[in-house]
Amino acid sequence: MTSSSDNMLAPSDRGVASRRRFLTASVGVAGTVVAGRSLAGTLADVPARPPGAPLSGHGERSEYVHLGRLPEAGPGMRKVDPADAINSKTPLDKLVGIITPTDLHYERSHSGVPDLDPAKHRLLIHGMVQKALVLTVDDLKAMPSVSRIHFIECTGNGWENWKKADPTLTVQNTHGLVSTNEWTGVPLRFLIDLVGKDRRSTWMLAEGGDGAGVDRSIPLTDEIMNEAIVAYGQNGEPLRPSNGFPIRLLMPGFEGNLNIKWLRRLKFGDQPWMTRWETARYTQLLANGKAMQFQLRMETNSVITSPSGMVEIRPGYNRITGLAWSGHGKIVKVEISTNGAKTWKEAQLNHPVLRKAHTRFQMDWEWDGKPTKIVSRSTDEKGNVQPDRKSVIARMGENALFHYNGQQTWAVDAAGRVTNVLA
Amino acid sequence: MTSSSDNMLAPSDRGVASRRRFLTASVGVAGTVVAGRSLAGTLADVPARPPGAPLSGHGERSEYVHLGRLPEAGPGMRKVDPADAINSKTPLDKLVGIITPTDLHYERSHSGVPDLDPAKHRLLIHGMVQKALVLTVDDLKAMPSVSRIHFIECTGNGWENWKKADPTLTVQNTHGLVSTNEWTGVPLRFLIDLVGKDRRSTWMLAEGGDGAGVDRSIPLTDEIMNEAIVAYGQNGEPLRPSNGFPIRLLMPGFEGNLNIKWLRRLKFGDQPWMTRWETARYTQLLANGKAMQFQLRMETNSVITSPSGMVEIRPGYNRITGLAWSGHGKIVKVEISTNGAKTWKEAQLNHPVLRKAHTRFQMDWEWDGKPTKIVSRSTDEKGNVQPDRKSVIARMGENALFHYNGQQTWAVDAAGRVTNVLA
Repeated sequence: MTSSSDNMLAPSDRGVASRRRFLTASVGVAGTVVAGRSLAGTLADVPARPPGAPLSGHGERSEYVHLGRLPEAGPGMRKVDPADAINSKTPLDKLVGIITPTDLHYERSHSGVPDLDPAKHRLLIHGMVQKALVLTVDDLKAMPSVSRIHFIECTGNGWENWKKADPTLTVQNTHGLVSTNEWTGVPLRFLIDLVGKDRRSTWMLAEGGDGAGVDRSIPLTDEIMNEAIVAYGQNGEPLRPSNGFPIRLLMPGFEGNLNIKWLRRLKFGDQPWMTRWETARYTQLLANGKAMQFQLRMETNSVITSPSGMVEIRPGYNRITGLAWSGHGKIVKVEISTNGAKTWKEAQLNHPVLRKAHTRFQMDWEWDGKPTKIVSRSTDEKGNVQPDRKSVIARMGENALFHYNGQQTWAVDAAGRVTNVLA
Repeated sequence: MTSSSDNMLAPSDRGVASRRRFLTASVGVAGTVVAGRSLAGTLADVPARPPGAPLSGHGERSEYVHLGRLPEAGPGMRKVDPADAINSKTPLDKLVGIITPTDLHYERSHSGVPDLDPAKHRLLIHGMVQKALVLTVDDLKAMPSVSRIHFIECTGNGWENWKKADPTLTVQNTHGLVSTNEWTGVPLRFLIDLVGKDRRSTWMLAEGGDGAGVDRSIPLTDEIMNEAIVAYGQNGEPLRPSNGFPIRLLMPGFEGNLNIKWLRRLKFGDQPWMTRWETARYTQLLANGKAMQFQLRMETNSVITSPSGMVEIRPGYNRITGLAWSGHGKIVKVEISTNGAKTWKEAQLNHPVLRKAHTRFQMDWEWDGKPTKIVSRSTDEKGNVQPDRKSVIARMGENALFHYNGQQTWAVDAAGRVTNVLA
């Protein structure tokens, strides 16, 4: 997966024909961007070299770059006083690669963002164990650690399109509750061995140290015991407060709300605790009026991030790119349709393709200038194929709110305007 | 490399004995951190849950976290007015995982840090080509792209220890001129095909758009043509000005100064240009008085980042961790000696292990409280083994300044103080 030949998009795979086509198209693009300029240039076409500012302790963003999350109050309530926001979305349309900038990782909080003093914070581990422990953050940092690149996704990601499609939504609005970072911390398995978990304990309660004290019951499957970590690091540095500083639970592939932030307690037991977060909240209301509990794993998903809602494109060459991810493991295939899901073509995947992490895909597209719809669908290593919207509704009904992973369709009109539509 | 079983540090490999030893040690650590507190605790030991701040557009660092690069004037000139700094070093001692936080990626500049207007910036590609082109940044962003996680290392990294060892140096001082980010941009191969490079062209000149206009001649080997990219993205977002915004050349595995920042020109030719940056600067003065040119590849290297210079440790369990990297490809082995290079033990490598990227290693260590020295040495997939300091000196002499990759030794005295020493 990381040899010289497959650590990259092999340029030789693209074919000379593709490159020649791009060359033609590129002249068109460049010609429109800089009207009247000759492409065949000299140094006179390149701006002079200015002196620079002194070196510094932090490399801040360019004054020409404007990036920000989008605080929102909930589905359909986009304009909001930040004090009333319950989530803040990642600007997927403006990002590249698979790593989400640390300060742009999405947040979803139930009682704001506390900045806890790490010297005073404690993690209690108790319940069905040989020896209960209270650990400091320094204790955890002294233990063996792992670092893994994983996505976290709010179980409500995508709910904007459950019932209707607001044509003014960007991909930040529709899919901005998913992000990928490198997480560092102590394997849950190490802590389980440390406290001597009782073999009869099959569930774990994780509780947050914010005002809301979100707590969730987590089934102790082999997968979860092998992969969960108590994380203190995010993209190389300590967690940000909006991601649970000083420690959070990381549950790769599972609902964002299980990745308990500001973690202060792990309790081992032999049945779920039925907290209000898994009874009143985060249950799925089905068409028959019953509610489904513990629908924990995030499904295979994908979205085209460029071109996407509220941008304009020009006829000719356009690169389609986006992100795919699955709580089941690796993405093995992403297909793209440029004719409203009538026919599909396989996109290129950028390497490395990591388990339970964003995978970047792309495809060349020559747009003929006629109205159409573009759609992506992902397939993961377990064979799960991202469903279309109708299949999601057929399976989960119209009252459900969570785990929406329907294919996202962007319409392109004759003027090149791209908008959010239902399939 | 990314299956369920090897995407992590397999806890089962650690063994029960190791865990039991840690359990004992951990009680000691925790006991000293929180004197008088019982480890077997209840919720009363855990602080109450405070309300939080409103959600926001950016998740900033905690007020309790203090991270910064270190602007320096050069070897042995650590205290410096930022206006006189020529580089600014990454705080490796305070970081975890393999991704360097974007604002803490090291910088090395010859004329400060310009913040170029991306709307006005141009890239000229000319010389031995069928058709010279002047490209805008938007042109580049419209092209097929790749994203790769790679280290960049200043060729002067490590020079602090060439002749003597200042015992007050931290690992930020000794090795802070190397960082790893995810880079996104256009494969050089794509641009080569786009302009129709003459087959007789075997060298490429890359020139920066800062005041210094650093320009270097780059041999067009297959490896370089396949792996180099013109990058516009860094950890998911646009490059920071200190890393060449709006575009830089990325030369995976090669000297940092070849990764031309603020890139404004690529010229194809059939011989090197012998710029002042490869004649007066960035040549290696050997023991015989001759200077070596074009020593471009960064060698296999490693350093223990914790414990490291200017910290104090306690007897008992200590986790040793650090970073290894090689311009030749993947790291396959890191060994650690805790007795001054007399005997060695293999460290664990955290997955994923990526080509030409930082690899995080770690090892359990029970320190007996007696003075000793700890050292790491890496081996890459081409079989290169990181040499000890004497071998580096024997090969390159005492006048050389660049490509120092000698094993880094940290001494530990009876009081647990860790200091930089020569082997």
